[in-house]
Amino acid sequence: MAAELTQALLDAYLLRLQAGESAAIAVELSEMHPADAAEVLNELGESSMLAVLAEFPSDKLSEVLMEMDEDLRADILETFSGKEIAEVLLDNLDSDDAADLLGELPEAKKREVLSNLEDLELAKDLADLLTHAEGTAGALMATELIKVQADWNVMHCVREMRRQAEEVEHVHAVYVVDPNDVLLGLLSLKKLLTLSTRTPIAEVYDRKIRSVTSTTDAVEVARIMKKYDLVVLPVVDDLGRLLGRITIDDIVDVIQEEADSNYQLLSGLSEEVDHDDNLLESTRARLPWLLVGLVGGLVSSTVISSNESQLAFLPQMAFFIPLIAAMGGNVGVQSSAIVVQALANQTLDDGFWQRIFKELRVGLFNGLIFGVLILIYGWAAQLGLQFSLTVALSLLAVVVFASLFGTAVPWLLHQRGIDPALATGPFITTTNDVLGLTIYFAIARGIFGF
Amino acid sequence: MAAELTQALLDAYLLRLQAGESAAIAVELSEMHPADAAEVLNELGESSMLAVLAEFPSDKLSEVLMEMDEDLRADILETFSGKEIAEVLLDNLDSDDAADLLGELPEAKKREVLSNLEDLELAKDLADLLTHAEGTAGALMATELIKVQADWNVMHCVREMRRQAEEVEHVHAVYVVDPNDVLLGLLSLKKLLTLSTRTPIAEVYDRKIRSVTSTTDAVEVARIMKKYDLVVLPVVDDLGRLLGRITIDDIVDVIQEEADSNYQLLSGLSEEVDHDDNLLESTRARLPWLLVGLVGGLVSSTVISSNESQLAFLPQMAFFIPLIAAMGGNVGVQSSAIVVQALANQTLDDGFWQRIFKELRVGLFNGLIFGVLILIYGWAAQLGLQFSLTVALSLLAVVVFASLFGTAVPWLLHQRGIDPALATGPFITTTNDVLGLTIYFAIARGIFGF
Repeated sequence: MAAELTQALLDAYLLRLQAGESAAIAVELSEMHPADAAEVLNELGESSMLAVLAEFPSDKLSEVLMEMDEDLRADILETFSGKEIAEVLLDNLDSDDAADLLGELPEAKKREVLSNLEDLELAKDLADLLTHAEGTAGALMATELIKVQADWNVMHCVREMRRQAEEVEHVHAVYVVDPNDVLLGLLSLKKLLTLSTRTPIAEVYDRKIRSVTSTTDAVEVARIMKKYDLVVLPVVDDLGRLLGRITIDDIVDVIQEEADSNYQLLSGLSEEVDHDDNLLESTRARLPWLLVGLVGGLVSSTVISSNESQLAFLPQMAFFIPLIAAMGGNVGVQSSAIVVQALANQTLDDGFWQRIFKELRVGLFNGLIFGVLILIYGWAAQLGLQFSLTVALSLLAVVVFASLFGTAVPWLLHQRGIDPALATGPFITTTNDVLGLTIYFAIARGIFGF
Repeated sequence: MAAELTQALLDAYLLRLQAGESAAIAVELSEMHPADAAEVLNELGESSMLAVLAEFPSDKLSEVLMEMDEDLRADILETFSGKEIAEVLLDNLDSDDAADLLGELPEAKKREVLSNLEDLELAKDLADLLTHAEGTAGALMATELIKVQADWNVMHCVREMRRQAEEVEHVHAVYVVDPNDVLLGLLSLKKLLTLSTRTPIAEVYDRKIRSVTSTTDAVEVARIMKKYDLVVLPVVDDLGRLLGRITIDDIVDVIQEEADSNYQLLSGLSEEVDHDDNLLESTRARLPWLLVGLVGGLVSSTVISSNESQLAFLPQMAFFIPLIAAMGGNVGVQSSAIVVQALANQTLDDGFWQRIFKELRVGLFNGLIFGVLILIYGWAAQLGLQFSLTVALSLLAVVVFASLFGTAVPWLLHQRGIDPALATGPFITTTNDVLGLTIYFAIARGIFGF
């Protein structure tokens, strides 16, 4: 049912814009889902986009803005005064989105918007929300929710819910609190539908309720909501007072961002790459890890050049340099990725040494398989036993070493509170290249006794 | 609030099991959230786990089973007869979970369970659900939902909802259908709370409703639910008749699995690695891509050995073999990862040649930067201009080539309906090693005129 945005559709909009139909297009877009409208606006180009937005019905503007690309949104908000942002935008957004939008503004403008808000209650809520650190439950939560008191009966409850529901767009859950706002439990809509109107709430609400505090890490919130299949999760302060709630759609974004970020680090990208990035933006994302690789390659070259006499004596050693480097890299990346994924999915319940021991076993086993294959290849390719043995033993050592190194480094980073995903991808392959070659020449020295 | 499972806690359970307290432990676990109980059971070891489950209250058994590891669940279900599975398990599960469980059984046992179900309606529903192909909306949906007819009024509606709510655990949404069960729209709980009891449903329900058909791909379902921030999405047949609904918690699993699978392929793992995998399972996940790397390394060795005379003439060429190989690999992995991530997030709206042209530009730009850095290094390390130029030009060519190759291959795989993530990680690095070295020796031949 969703209209797919095609180049043809976009071209049609651009033609109509040139014919001066920006007002008609604004009306059309405002009747779509904000996510669809934003998709079109993102692609129109700056001047056309601003022309359409200028004609946009004000009650639809805020939701569309929230769905647009963050850098475009910043450009648009610059064209609004603090008063306009306060009036037009904030009163149509849930508090979590409104706080996100405010958080993107420069400090002075943020204060200007807050001081222009007529709803003082909302201004206070937003100022509170803005105090929560990014990546915490507090920064993800919205304050719109429906709460009832434990000492009411069902009828009183429904009456209050009707009143509150006018300010809340979606009813996700009905929270039960005490007179001090301390969260006591949850009232299921199903019970509300099936109970007599006189029943006291205290008798029927569910006391088993999971909550997080506002300082809980977003990734931990995601883990809890995934594990217990929750659609909405209440957020409380240290006294247990209900502050807000987090809905699963925001958590889906957290999960996606976490996965994307790990994927980027594994592939050696230092930031997200957008299809419409310009040359400098694309380069900024790619260059840092490639430079690490470049430096690693140069270090490898000095390792080899310092063993030039060996190469002169045994030129075939050069043939297997790529093999040794590649296998070290591949094995290291596997091991580090396993640790990072296990940490992300919280499925790692081994201790450090237990894990290292397991890796040692797998590394030895794989290394032996490869060693035997190399010996067979060496026999077929008539490399000579001594040299085949050098390559086979080096490969075994490199595979074992790379598994241990690829496991230990991300693990230790994690223990120090550093993102373990930094030690995947180019970092691991580069380090293993250098160390693999060192091992290779050392073993050759041992076997041939140069 | 969730009890974290620690080794100490687990040891305490094991001690108590030895003291014959399996019944007491079963009662304790049954009072936890099924996800927590399953976490404990997963770790107890087969015989202890079966001892505890034998004492488990039958009405809690099914939910815990659904949360356990799939291979353990299979072992447990083998100990149950078809009749027991039908009686004990199926009547406490939502239809989507029940169908998943049935789908895991051997064909004969599945039929035995279905024929033993006393609820014929449920048996029919489950048999229907089992016909949907894995990875489609039909396979994800549950049939439990609340639906009302457009020609009812609010009071009739609430009465019907009460009746239906007894069979439905969570009320996510109230669907409005016509007498033929064709989906017309959605009735918001908020409206139901605030309207007079005489209001006809036809006047107040929301006709803007998104739905998917049962054959829609699960990844597409995830994209729609993410884009439109949906908590629940109805599934219809080709006539528009309401079949079931998909909730966001199942979609979170789809998103996570998709991300995990792409991550594994990028890191060269051919299947999921579990911390408690044994040696053979671990090896099975790691060996395939490592063998690809091994073969690539051997091909690289023949590329070098066929240029042995060049190496004899210019031994320094060996020094930069790791650099050329590593940079080709790193650049290729970046480019392929960008394509795969853009395809996964559906943010790729360039055409093929447009994308290739962009990559060409970025590759040339990065390659020039690296080329200049190498020339500077060559000057500092006194490599000689001719040789520095050889390495710099090779690096430029390899970077450009690897960007194009890393972009084109996953793209073409995707167009042929093959998972593009197969062309990330070891596949790309291995291919680029071989091709990079070929370029390196060809350029050296051109410059030095061997």
